[in-house]
Amino acid sequence: MAAWRSVVLTIFPEMFPGPLGQSLAGKALEGGIWSLDVLDIRDFARDKHRSVDDAPFGGGAGMVMRPDVVDTALAAAAQKWAQEDSSDDQATVKKAPVIYLSPRGRLLTQDLVRDLAAGPGVTLLCGRYEGVDERVLEARDVLEVSVGDYILSGGEPAALVLMDAVVRLLPGVMGNVTSPDEESFGEQGFEGLLEYPLYTRPAEWQGRTVPEVLTSGHHEKVRRWRQAQAEEITRTRRPDLWARYTKGRG
Amino acid sequence: MAAWRSVVLTIFPEMFPGPLGQSLAGKALEGGIWSLDVLDIRDFARDKHRSVDDAPFGGGAGMVMRPDVVDTALAAAAQKWAQEDSSDDQATVKKAPVIYLSPRGRLLTQDLVRDLAAGPGVTLLCGRYEGVDERVLEARDVLEVSVGDYILSGGEPAALVLMDAVVRLLPGVMGNVTSPDEESFGEQGFEGLLEYPLYTRPAEWQGRTVPEVLTSGHHEKVRRWRQAQAEEITRTRRPDLWARYTKGRG
Repeated sequence: MAAWRSVVLTIFPEMFPGPLGQSLAGKALEGGIWSLDVLDIRDFARDKHRSVDDAPFGGGAGMVMRPDVVDTALAAAAQKWAQEDSSDDQATVKKAPVIYLSPRGRLLTQDLVRDLAAGPGVTLLCGRYEGVDERVLEARDVLEVSVGDYILSGGEPAALVLMDAVVRLLPGVMGNVTSPDEESFGEQGFEGLLEYPLYTRPAEWQGRTVPEVLTSGHHEKVRRWRQAQAEEITRTRRPDLWARYTKGRG
Repeated sequence: MAAWRSVVLTIFPEMFPGPLGQSLAGKALEGGIWSLDVLDIRDFARDKHRSVDDAPFGGGAGMVMRPDVVDTALAAAAQKWAQEDSSDDQATVKKAPVIYLSPRGRLLTQDLVRDLAAGPGVTLLCGRYEGVDERVLEARDVLEVSVGDYILSGGEPAALVLMDAVVRLLPGVMGNVTSPDEESFGEQGFEGLLEYPLYTRPAEWQGRTVPEVLTSGHHEKVRRWRQAQAEEITRTRRPDLWARYTKGRG
């Protein structure tokens, strides 16, 4: 099976793999479960200063990434995919999406993470400055994705988060270390609910004990307690998720 | 003025500062605008294997981080804050929150980012495995924060995102490089709206031109066009933000 593949476009290539070079993601990268190509957008600049940005039309503070430079970088990324695809059965190759990390994008969800993990990989465009010229996003059919409703210094931290979320779902990455299926937003267990409270040893700590049901050995009671806890936490902390959950069951 | 301070608790200390050691955040870290202390939770383990986790009461896959070990690590973090505070005027020192990055938490928003940037700093607890024993979160009055509705391999990528969002707002970090105020979720300009489309040179690229109004030199028309674009993008891409925006003005 071909590795899940990521191609990252950035003006800070040294930020990658960063945290993804450690821990399970790092071992999976070394082990060939996923791959990472980083392209420096400055390599596609057209002047000796390696400029990638210019002032915005219409005025305003900050700079905008040029469409021509970004387009050439995206073409180089597409070229990398074409090289890879030639060794596979063309008919079965699903096209990898091109994602621009941006607070204007659709919110990243676990469903999108799962879709990406099930596909061949992703090309990630990391913007800096104010953002990227709109025309290249249109011309290249780029999907805008936001990791949350806050502003980052650039797309790089968002790209690291997106890749981390995807890589942990790839076959062979998690082993028995943890369980992707019964967590918040998981596919099984308490789907669509936030996770129930967790307890481990010591059974008594600073006068605080573990809920009795958890040491009862009664599996069905444990399951019902966890379900009730997950429902209560979701209802009180995230009414938006709770509404979606109850609607889905209604 | 004292630097904005971050204390990070993790079992992967080598993930920090990671991407925050580069670019503007990296320069601000070198320049003393913010500081970063990283504590390895394993240093607070009680056995020679440096174990930080154990099996969950009630069964299930995965491991849970022990309350005693995490508590000792949090106490060490609090000690670092106490040392720092002794040199300041106690009466004016706002208490820095302890945040546990977790998909069960309240969603990180730009409002919370601004609150954190206006405070003295933050202690960030990064969980791994299934999560952290509930009792230590209660005992230490920990605030749970989620960077988005997806599952990460641990709290570390989320902590990097949170710090990146905060650091760019600290005085002196951004300079004139970009403008924190007129972006999506900004405080001024088109508050509560996603950002309008951006254009830069070349004025014509691959047959695609820049909207005429942006080259008109008519500032008020440009402002109105951008406002209308921001509203349209928000309305179509994020009905939830649009509802909040229109309600806020109604």
